[in-house]
Amino acid sequence: MKTLIRNVHILSMDENYSEIKDGYLVIEEECITKIGSVSELNSLTLDVDKVIDGKNGLLIPGMINTHTHAGMIPFRSLGDDVPDRLRRFLFPLEQYMTKELVKASSNYAIAEMLLSGVTSFCDMYYFEDEVAKSCKKMGIRALVGETIIDMPTCDSPTPSGGYAYCESFLEQWQNDPLITPIIAPHAPNTNNVEMLKKIVSLSEKYNAPITMHVSEMTYEITEFQEKYNQTPIEFLQTLGYFERDFILAHCIFATEHDLDILVNSKGKARVAHCIGANTKSAKGVAPIKQMLEKNILTGLGTDGPSSGNTLDLFSQMRLFANVHKTYNQDRSLFPAKEIVRLATIGGAETLGLADQVGSITVGKKADLTLIETESVNMFPIFDPYSAIVYSANASNVDSVWVNGRQLVSEKKLVEQELNEIKATLYHEMATFVTEANKVN
Amino acid sequence: MKTLIRNVHILSMDENYSEIKDGYLVIEEECITKIGSVSELNSLTLDVDKVIDGKNGLLIPGMINTHTHAGMIPFRSLGDDVPDRLRRFLFPLEQYMTKELVKASSNYAIAEMLLSGVTSFCDMYYFEDEVAKSCKKMGIRALVGETIIDMPTCDSPTPSGGYAYCESFLEQWQNDPLITPIIAPHAPNTNNVEMLKKIVSLSEKYNAPITMHVSEMTYEITEFQEKYNQTPIEFLQTLGYFERDFILAHCIFATEHDLDILVNSKGKARVAHCIGANTKSAKGVAPIKQMLEKNILTGLGTDGPSSGNTLDLFSQMRLFANVHKTYNQDRSLFPAKEIVRLATIGGAETLGLADQVGSITVGKKADLTLIETESVNMFPIFDPYSAIVYSANASNVDSVWVNGRQLVSEKKLVEQELNEIKATLYHEMATFVTEANKVN
Ligand SMILES: [Zn+2]
Ligand SMILES: [Zn+2]
Repeated sequence: MKTLIRNVHILSMDENYSEIKDGYLVIEEECITKIGSVSELNSLTLDVDKVIDGKNGLLIPGMINTHTHAGMIPFRSLGDDVPDRLRRFLFPLEQYMTKELVKASSNYAIAEMLLSGVTSFCDMYYFEDEVAKSCKKMGIRALVGETIIDMPTCDSPTPSGGYAYCESFLEQWQNDPLITPIIAPHAPNTNNVEMLKKIVSLSEKYNAPITMHVSEMTYEITEFQEKYNQTPIEFLQTLGYFERDFILAHCIFATEHDLDILVNSKGKARVAHCIGANTKSAKGVAPIKQMLEKNILTGLGTDGPSSGNTLDLFSQMRLFANVHKTYNQDRSLFPAKEIVRLATIGGAETLGLADQVGSITVGKKADLTLIETESVNMFPIFDPYSAIVYSANASNVDSVWVNGRQLVSEKKLVEQELNEIKATLYHEMATFVTEANKVN
Repeated sequence: MKTLIRNVHILSMDENYSEIKDGYLVIEEECITKIGSVSELNSLTLDVDKVIDGKNGLLIPGMINTHTHAGMIPFRSLGDDVPDRLRRFLFPLEQYMTKELVKASSNYAIAEMLLSGVTSFCDMYYFEDEVAKSCKKMGIRALVGETIIDMPTCDSPTPSGGYAYCESFLEQWQNDPLITPIIAPHAPNTNNVEMLKKIVSLSEKYNAPITMHVSEMTYEITEFQEKYNQTPIEFLQTLGYFERDFILAHCIFATEHDLDILVNSKGKARVAHCIGANTKSAKGVAPIKQMLEKNILTGLGTDGPSSGNTLDLFSQMRLFANVHKTYNQDRSLFPAKEIVRLATIGGAETLGLADQVGSITVGKKADLTLIETESVNMFPIFDPYSAIVYSANASNVDSVWVNGRQLVSEKKLVEQELNEIKATLYHEMATFVTEANKVN
């Protein structure tokens, strides 16, 4: 299968930010095999199976959502503005999460991500085997990790049941072209020390990356201060976490010394920055300026549908720009180009996928997002990066490819019916809704 | 003409936040004449000309954009991330704004606002007669004010030419059902004192509201401090501005004493808060919490397409929530309901239109926005206000009515062709684009 996409403004997001204004691109099987200017097309003999007219849209690498919880769609719009929602709404209602509900939610969440131009994501929650299967069905690329937490969960009657789940999950999903199985301890303060140590060993045994919520909660910081006179990051360092591939979600309260620990990991520790979730919950603004100055690899994440609400990165990019510029009192900080970088190749680096995806480069996998420029919000475009960060929203995504396979065309899923996915989710949510309405 | 809209979740935004989940609404001529529950419909004899199925969408009052510059679409995505853009990009390029270009830009900007559910706006720029005519053509409600500034402008070879323009404009647009002509001095620091005084007299003579950028720039604050040992707001008070209907855009640096001046105006002074523009430019966060605690009337504004980039209020609502919660370190501050309030009835109060629009109330003008809930980002909805603030974007707007006239249906303009409006704007922009590319 060979596809030609023509009449697109290619923003490659490679290290030189190469652009081709009147671009074309060829996909063969799962890879990008040619990129060039449409003006050269006539002199080429391209024997392709399919030609797609990009109508002067912006072709960017598929966006990378570095932290989310695909199983949590049922929680969206529930208790958004209440204090300590985690312990008041999320933990109590999670007992009503079933395997079928996680599956239905994952299908829905992945549909939402694909429709908004996200082609890879990093997930942690429960029943993660269902999430991985959903990824395969929907065709998206993902790092998938079962949550380990020191309490009974919806998929384990005993605390830390996620550990055994993880081990068999890691066995099962080795060497999948789309799925990277990972280990997902919930947070430093929600696991006991023994388990935190075992997780490092498990990561060594399977050469599996770890992701964890770190330095997100004020009470987490206080607890480690009081117990160990350390920050959570300092504590995790003593356990060997910074010798593993380690994706830290949030890092809101990371100190200068914490950042040095990340730097010293030499790229093994990376940060999933969730500006929407962090600011909506009034937790704070992570020191991203400082991280990037120290060349710490960083990507953007939506967090779950109950925290960041939507799973698209357009919302996150715009919030990122406005919040960080004001927080640092510098309007020229983080020009739009750098923010698009965080949402694409930056995210790929964060998830350890940059050799495969994250930029439009010959030889890389064809994970692509085509943003149309016909809608009213997308004119004029003096700067395409500005248009993406400050004007675009998820509805401007026209087409999406993952691993060479077109999954979205003309703003619709190609292989799935969104209405069916929604109907199934609605059906599976019945008990959850009843219980949620009692708490709400 | 009598229209029945049925199967809608009505968020009235009246003083009790009344809601009807299975609602219907009747529009007769320009007004809302009936509101109720669909279950009562059978027992009614409603002789209507048109029935619209709202498909369980959210019906809210049309949104109110309290501060923008419809003529400035040509500037969008130009120099977004550069310091002092006003004096480096905007002022120099404004000489290429022609009457035809303002007209074309206004048609486009109004199309964008309507498509995103905005039914009233407050505008200031040049060639405002064209803006008013464009409003009439497109059918939107607006406060329209010619800018007065102490320098030559695109529509006046001599400084402060806007004053004479304003006076004839005020004469001409008296008693229009959709247009309220107003006076728009650019800012306290860009007009001389004599002119600022004359503007108050002009406002008295025509009983015309004033709008002005106030307390937006750090150098504005410094200048008034040095010259008068006063804040701009204190200075304007000495000139009588707070005895006039006065819409202050921004007020980022308003002090406690400034707020007391606003309070003492007894509702005559109102604030157009532009969170997107203010944070993108790293100017700061206006003390909205304090303003609302003092019952100062406040609405949301996008500012111009070069500052806030898009002209929809969904982006502003989401930014508002996240920024103010974090700024005030309180996640329960400004629950979604209060933010939807600011975008609707709050905006109407700010523009002095609350007796006519801003809530879904029998007897008020039918300015309405129907938000569909079928798109992937709009499920589930435990709280419709949350869904609007944290999940929705401009593309979820299905239908819009202004003054009883349906202007948007199924996400498209009813009476206009967007492509034609865009083609005309593109044509009129030729010289501007050439010059912009020299500066860029
Ligand atoms: Zn999370
Ligand atoms: Zn303005």
